[in-house]
Amino acid sequence: MSGYFITVEGGEGAGKSSILQTLGKKLTAMGYDVLTTREPGGIEIAEKIRKIILDPTHTTMDGRTEALLYAAARRQHLAEKVLPALESGRIVLCDRFIDSSLAYQGYARGLGMDEVFTINQFAIQDCMPDMTIFFDIEPKKGLERISANKDRERNRLDLENIHFHEQVYQAYQKLVLKFPERIQVINANQPFEQVEADAMNLIVSRLTNKA
Amino acid sequence: MSGYFITVEGGEGAGKSSILQTLGKKLTAMGYDVLTTREPGGIEIAEKIRKIILDPTHTTMDGRTEALLYAAARRQHLAEKVLPALESGRIVLCDRFIDSSLAYQGYARGLGMDEVFTINQFAIQDCMPDMTIFFDIEPKKGLERISANKDRERNRLDLENIHFHEQVYQAYQKLVLKFPERIQVINANQPFEQVEADAMNLIVSRLTNKA
Repeated sequence: MSGYFITVEGGEGAGKSSILQTLGKKLTAMGYDVLTTREPGGIEIAEKIRKIILDPTHTTMDGRTEALLYAAARRQHLAEKVLPALESGRIVLCDRFIDSSLAYQGYARGLGMDEVFTINQFAIQDCMPDMTIFFDIEPKKGLERISANKDRERNRLDLENIHFHEQVYQAYQKLVLKFPERIQVINANQPFEQVEADAMNLIVSRLTNKA
Repeated sequence: MSGYFITVEGGEGAGKSSILQTLGKKLTAMGYDVLTTREPGGIEIAEKIRKIILDPTHTTMDGRTEALLYAAARRQHLAEKVLPALESGRIVLCDRFIDSSLAYQGYARGLGMDEVFTINQFAIQDCMPDMTIFFDIEPKKGLERISANKDRERNRLDLENIHFHEQVYQAYQKLVLKFPERIQVINANQPFEQVEADAMNLIVSRLTNKA
């Protein structure tokens, strides 16, 4: 595959979703052919799966069912949107991917990172990201940012307690140690413009070395 | 767990679904506390997952997405219905379980039996059936039975060609060799009453030895 697959990861309030949009526009302006996406990415089957996961009436949803549904939605988004883009040589910027499942379901929900990795390996086969940017910010600071932003839509995860978010943060630290080549860390506890500039530098440097 | 978990498996037209109902009634009449079920088993979340799998408009459904969705539905049915029954000491008779995924998706669809086993292991943890009855009938004869029965509702799998059903049959042969203790074979190419009697004998013998 001639494309380049970049994912961004981090806890709540790290700013990655907003920055990803800006990065996509800047890279496009530089002449790169970029697809900016996030799961379920408008893929009908993946959207329907996501709807089952997030339905607040599904109070009996088992943790393993949830992890399998995330992996299923990931597979479909990958097969229908990400892989075709990579195959045609595009740069794919994806907001969250396998590491989110490892951190949230594998570690914070206690299903086991290795076990959740196994089902995700089935889902993505050998399509691991070429590069992952981890937006590093302490959970407490990330959550303060969220509560300061009155426009932000609250989701189920925002309602988890601080302990849960600290578990997620610990999991990302473990992943950074486990995949030192793939996962690059940027300090997300800086002004938005600086975080964006750091992420942009990392990406451009990789793309330049790749070319 | 004090219960006993029995699954029945086989290709199309093997007669297992009808016989399972009769077996359930006879065992109940003998004083056993029996739950007869099949996935998705009326579990709301599992029914919704199944609806996504079977929706005929989902022509872009990837084989791996499908396998993950089956595993997710299996997990939820197990967690909400099968495990509570086993924990309260009941006998569970389930029409199809993990072996169907291994045969249909793993082998006949070519995803790999070991790989499909891995994601199902995540789904069921250590809850393998105590006993599985394989209804052995050549695919050609099974399909003849189906076409002779005008009342039977046709499903997506009935429309697959004979080659597909032969692949499924081959897969079951492999599973019988792989799990000789767990999987018991009965000749399903006999009159209904004889097949039923053979299955009943197998089950009663196991339950008696267990007690």
